[in-house]
Amino acid sequence: MSGKNYVHGYTEREAERLRDQAETLTELLHGDTRYPAGSRVLEAGCGTGAQTVILARNSPEARITSIDISEASLVEARKRVLAEGLTNVTFEAGNIFDLPYEPGSFDHIFLCFVLEHLAEPRRALKRLRPLLREGGTITVIEGDHGSAYFYPDSPCARRAIGCLVDLQREMGGNALIGRELYPLVTGAGYRDVSVSPRMVYADASRPDLVHGFTRLTFTAMVEGVGDDAVGRGMMSREEWELGVADLYRTAGPDGVFCYTFFKATGRK
Amino acid sequence: MSGKNYVHGYTEREAERLRDQAETLTELLHGDTRYPAGSRVLEAGCGTGAQTVILARNSPEARITSIDISEASLVEARKRVLAEGLTNVTFEAGNIFDLPYEPGSFDHIFLCFVLEHLAEPRRALKRLRPLLREGGTITVIEGDHGSAYFYPDSPCARRAIGCLVDLQREMGGNALIGRELYPLVTGAGYRDVSVSPRMVYADASRPDLVHGFTRLTFTAMVEGVGDDAVGRGMMSREEWELGVADLYRTAGPDGVFCYTFFKATGRK
Repeated sequence: MSGKNYVHGYTEREAERLRDQAETLTELLHGDTRYPAGSRVLEAGCGTGAQTVILARNSPEARITSIDISEASLVEARKRVLAEGLTNVTFEAGNIFDLPYEPGSFDHIFLCFVLEHLAEPRRALKRLRPLLREGGTITVIEGDHGSAYFYPDSPCARRAIGCLVDLQREMGGNALIGRELYPLVTGAGYRDVSVSPRMVYADASRPDLVHGFTRLTFTAMVEGVGDDAVGRGMMSREEWELGVADLYRTAGPDGVFCYTFFKATGRK
Repeated sequence: MSGKNYVHGYTEREAERLRDQAETLTELLHGDTRYPAGSRVLEAGCGTGAQTVILARNSPEARITSIDISEASLVEARKRVLAEGLTNVTFEAGNIFDLPYEPGSFDHIFLCFVLEHLAEPRRALKRLRPLLREGGTITVIEGDHGSAYFYPDSPCARRAIGCLVDLQREMGGNALIGRELYPLVTGAGYRDVSVSPRMVYADASRPDLVHGFTRLTFTAMVEGVGDDAVGRGMMSREEWELGVADLYRTAGPDGVFCYTFFKATGRK
């Protein structure tokens, strides 16, 4: 995955969206990942560090190595970790398919929102496995845009989400990867694989989630690929805008929005 | 809802499917519904009693009145309750929109897989509300066929599920009602409404769930409307059979199946 092929782009608004998402979802996705003191953790594909700061905060005495292929992202990630006063993270530039570490270098490997961008996610998991010590664990978190449904339902909104899925596929990624984690992690040779879905359910009784997730995370992400989708003729501008408006509509007082992340763990 | 308009029909196989579904899902859907000794509970739309026996078992000292519009279903429901040795249920034939009870007759009202079959679910909830005492609770459980997604994904399988949704709509029902419970229950005048999604996630590490839910419950239900769907020209026989085969395929060793039920509670 090279910088220019990252479907969401690297704009300032995107960085903000990623921060909002990380805060809203921190407990849901990361609450049960705590690595012991002294353990060596590899975060493969740290991006701009949105998950890194959570990982480092939740496991303050673990020694975390966070790698990413994008130097620009690493600059941002280093700033974030510094700003949080965290000192247990080392950043290194590297390709997930060709990392320079000795076999058995890590007790745990962690990937969050990475496999969705790779054309060969199973191969990535296979390449990472030797880096784990025997009995070491892997943890993988991914979303699944096909898990999004909402009230009021809207064909235009569904088509807009479909554009995001199609754009990600064109770039070699898979926005429906969440549901596939069990066969992927199992097929890459890990044992004791367990997948736990983490559903986000947002209605008016949970205004923070409606704002943080329905509006700022999901709908903003869809909105962000509008020019691409319309420019390629996937939808007309009018239909696109209707679809995005209908997604915002699900954040209204009688709206409901559902989305599911998947968290897989396995062992070498 | 009259007997002949019930989308799943009243065959022997359907009765068996309902029993399997009830057993697999009992804890997920009903585990947190326990009514106190002496409380008066109305189960509105008990059907053949699949949920009634769970309700009565979980609240052995509550006094349950279970009503249904279908006399044939009530015969079956009575048999079930007798076979289980349960003595805290009274069955009565009745129309959910026109029940003969005094205002405030019940401490709790319970509906499971009922609203999906009604053309006017909000009106049903409104008509039931006066039967509750002040402060009494309502509990509503519904599925949502639009929440079904799976690996491997399959356009034919998705279209087959879409036929089920369309057939239910033609009969005046709504197979996508789960996501809508919050606005429905709120809009019917109940307060303190809280909706909790109950996701079924089935992969090969959970063989009982794969068998009980993916195969015996969901796919068998879709399969059950095949003649209707093909007879009405919604899909060709070949496509239909591909779709059903693809659904069974998701119960294979590398398959995954996801479905979400919604449970709402509110208060008068």
